[in-house]
Amino acid sequence: MSNALKYILLFVASSSIILNLLLCIKLFSSDVGNNQNKDQSWSRSAAQEAELAASMDCSGHGRAYLDGIIIDGKPVCECNLCYSGPDCSNFSPDCPADANDGDPYYLEEFWKKHAASSAVMVSGWHRMSYSYSFSDQYCQISEELEKHIRKVHEVVGNAITDGKYIICGAGATQLLNAAVHALSSNNPSIFPTRVVATAPYYKVYQTQTEYFESNRYRFEGEASACMNGSDTTTNIIEFVTSPSNPEGQFKRPVLSGPNVKTIYDRAYYWPNFTPIPGPADEDLSIFTISKLTGHAGSRFGWALVKDKEVYERMTEYLNENTVGISKDTQLRMLKILKVVLEDGSKEMFGFAHRIMKNRWERLRDVLAHSDRFSLQQTPAQYCTFTHGVREPTPAYAWLKCEKEEDENCSDVLRSANIIGRKGDLFNADNHYVRLSLIRTEDDFDNLINRLHKMVNTKPRVLDKEKDHARPSASVAIERQSIRFGDVYHAYRSEVISQ
Amino acid sequence: MSNALKYILLFVASSSIILNLLLCIKLFSSDVGNNQNKDQSWSRSAAQEAELAASMDCSGHGRAYLDGIIIDGKPVCECNLCYSGPDCSNFSPDCPADANDGDPYYLEEFWKKHAASSAVMVSGWHRMSYSYSFSDQYCQISEELEKHIRKVHEVVGNAITDGKYIICGAGATQLLNAAVHALSSNNPSIFPTRVVATAPYYKVYQTQTEYFESNRYRFEGEASACMNGSDTTTNIIEFVTSPSNPEGQFKRPVLSGPNVKTIYDRAYYWPNFTPIPGPADEDLSIFTISKLTGHAGSRFGWALVKDKEVYERMTEYLNENTVGISKDTQLRMLKILKVVLEDGSKEMFGFAHRIMKNRWERLRDVLAHSDRFSLQQTPAQYCTFTHGVREPTPAYAWLKCEKEEDENCSDVLRSANIIGRKGDLFNADNHYVRLSLIRTEDDFDNLINRLHKMVNTKPRVLDKEKDHARPSASVAIERQSIRFGDVYHAYRSEVISQ
Repeated sequence: MSNALKYILLFVASSSIILNLLLCIKLFSSDVGNNQNKDQSWSRSAAQEAELAASMDCSGHGRAYLDGIIIDGKPVCECNLCYSGPDCSNFSPDCPADANDGDPYYLEEFWKKHAASSAVMVSGWHRMSYSYSFSDQYCQISEELEKHIRKVHEVVGNAITDGKYIICGAGATQLLNAAVHALSSNNPSIFPTRVVATAPYYKVYQTQTEYFESNRYRFEGEASACMNGSDTTTNIIEFVTSPSNPEGQFKRPVLSGPNVKTIYDRAYYWPNFTPIPGPADEDLSIFTISKLTGHAGSRFGWALVKDKEVYERMTEYLNENTVGISKDTQLRMLKILKVVLEDGSKEMFGFAHRIMKNRWERLRDVLAHSDRFSLQQTPAQYCTFTHGVREPTPAYAWLKCEKEEDENCSDVLRSANIIGRKGDLFNADNHYVRLSLIRTEDDFDNLINRLHKMVNTKPRVLDKEKDHARPSASVAIERQSIRFGDVYHAYRSEVISQ
Repeated sequence: MSNALKYILLFVASSSIILNLLLCIKLFSSDVGNNQNKDQSWSRSAAQEAELAASMDCSGHGRAYLDGIIIDGKPVCECNLCYSGPDCSNFSPDCPADANDGDPYYLEEFWKKHAASSAVMVSGWHRMSYSYSFSDQYCQISEELEKHIRKVHEVVGNAITDGKYIICGAGATQLLNAAVHALSSNNPSIFPTRVVATAPYYKVYQTQTEYFESNRYRFEGEASACMNGSDTTTNIIEFVTSPSNPEGQFKRPVLSGPNVKTIYDRAYYWPNFTPIPGPADEDLSIFTISKLTGHAGSRFGWALVKDKEVYERMTEYLNENTVGISKDTQLRMLKILKVVLEDGSKEMFGFAHRIMKNRWERLRDVLAHSDRFSLQQTPAQYCTFTHGVREPTPAYAWLKCEKEEDENCSDVLRSANIIGRKGDLFNADNHYVRLSLIRTEDDFDNLINRLHKMVNTKPRVLDKEKDHARPSASVAIERQSIRFGDVYHAYRSEVISQ
């Protein structure tokens, strides 16, 4: 009995000692883990706040932001259009489908899926200076960011950056006027530089050029009006958007000569929207992050500039206007571009193209049996980025009301509770309306449902293989039908965001 | 023996079991800690990157940034002026003391000390839209940020915000021209609005107004030139910087009348630099984060605007110019203002004032026995924020070379290896030089050492009590000696950053 007790005690003691050893090992290893977590000292609370905002349940129809309104210690959901309620789950059936502006929410899901690689922690003392360099107070772009911008162009193959200067602006918007300013005549007292474009064009070229009312330049509308002039001395600046907004088609300048300068707006020249036939190699090309990655709110764009003097004049504009752009934004854009470059850039562009392709298929499908509406033609081309022939998937549909009597196509759509941007806001015929296809999935679903009701057909089941090869529905853009110059100043407030 | 063994075993077993229990409790509690850390999922790697950059040893003479150049997987130190080497420990004894521009590094140490509360984690999908509101595409300021701006003014007591609109811009710089644009005549065909200021003034009022060459307004130099005119129909815009740059003195407009509008540049109206006699209550006041918290690189400023139409016109300018400002910046500024508001705002303003007071004491001390140089007079006043009488501690010294023959005071300083900003860059006499006192501690030390060598006196030990009450050294600014209008266009590139 005594022996049995002894053996039991011996067993208990030895088991307990072994258990102690195991617990010590476990505890030691978890302490190592804790020490690793202690590496995150000052950053922890900021990280937790951001994770809290990200964890809010908004039913897939909204999101909570770190700088949103706080109720009970938590940021509230900000719901997509037509959704409401604390978790954005209430849909308003009578809510109009908004397809007006180009708010690029269509990539929001991509960034949520790549949360870890795209997040950035900004310390309180990050880049407090006006400049990136202690010895050069006008160094306004970070070396790393510039390197990554060049790399993205190289990988995508959409622009040659060798031998070009890079200048950053608050979106393409700021750079458009900086470029006009830099390219316009130094001696405006005789004839101010004439600024022109070819309709349908992005209205900001006009509203912005007119708004700033410089003595040096004047907006004069249609480029074609300058074609047959004998005046080869007045300087002319031609805006060329390629792929174009609203049509999504490649465009070339219509003017040439020693007195003509071209500003290429390349906002849409990314695989998201178009095959890439080859690299642009222009004197002055403008790009924007808004359309590349969807970060319109960051206000970040850049220009590739061949001529040193033009670059310096644009830099002077940026300095007098805003002393360069936010370094907080540049830090974030660097991180975003790193994600774009991951995996040979296949992932983000693949995601963006799949979304756009799917939306175009659904749009064409719903309009396939209607002879009241048509869409722009966008022929397939070889894409050097994807190494294959592909159709464009433009950011916007340029819808035409085919009936002669539908002379305000925008009103026709409004009667079906659809908000588009009417033709004259592109200096084009009001038989046309631009529909934005890059907004939230909810906005797009609403648009498709309302179009479907309007054309009164049932959507057929997609045959994706067949659809991929099928040419775009419809009728080419009738350029000759475009009216000019009759709506300057109208609806300026409607057209600022792309 | 057998009993003794039994008791030993009993003791070992029971101790071991107790130890087991203790270890289990410890392990459980550390598991709870681990679970808390698991709350940080997607944010962890961004936090670790930022902590790595922050942990780089730069000998107190530099710092590594997250978007700096990476070598061997680590961001490199970016050294203060005159310091070099991998850890910024090499001082170059012949390096000039730079006191030229207003890079506000003097608060960097504050933000390092408040790392945890001032850091912000930006998610990849943060605020992708052009707007803060799904239903209003021109909602360009976050509600929370606006609320915090109003609160800072309320706590400091330097401006009344009730009944005022708030508009944000990329620093004060963008807002200055937005205000000129908004206040200038709608019908410029007859007489463009005259834009004026009183020297010595911040040169950007002139360079920017001239640079944008609008048909609507024209820079015309001295405000006093408009005083005796019988023309009461042409619109006039007067810039008033108060406290002024470079002198740090309170200023009032010299013009009044129904055709006169005033833009108050209130960049320096914070306890960092001045007693706060009472809240400003003006039609249009402009503030900037650069001078309030030192975040010049963020490009963030705001205007308080009384009149709705002026506010709307400034908003239109912002939209045509840059479509508002970066939402990444606004997120960070919100966090920064939250830290400013901590503890009744005593901590940041206390820190800023202590630094500035110390710098002024050292500067006055080094110049105390020199009759070659004098500093501006800045009388003590009652401060409603600190509830006591205090002397101003301006951002800049407005140094005067008292000798008649030192007619280029800037050259006198350059011969002693000191870089200041010369008087004519403020449309003032070149007997004056502005010295920036808000740069890094290293820059300031270098300045004091070089001034000390130049005036060839030994610094005396400060008697702080006595010093606090002592009136500023020197001679009042001789306004009548200021020369006007002779240096327009000169050195434009030197004066953009404040």
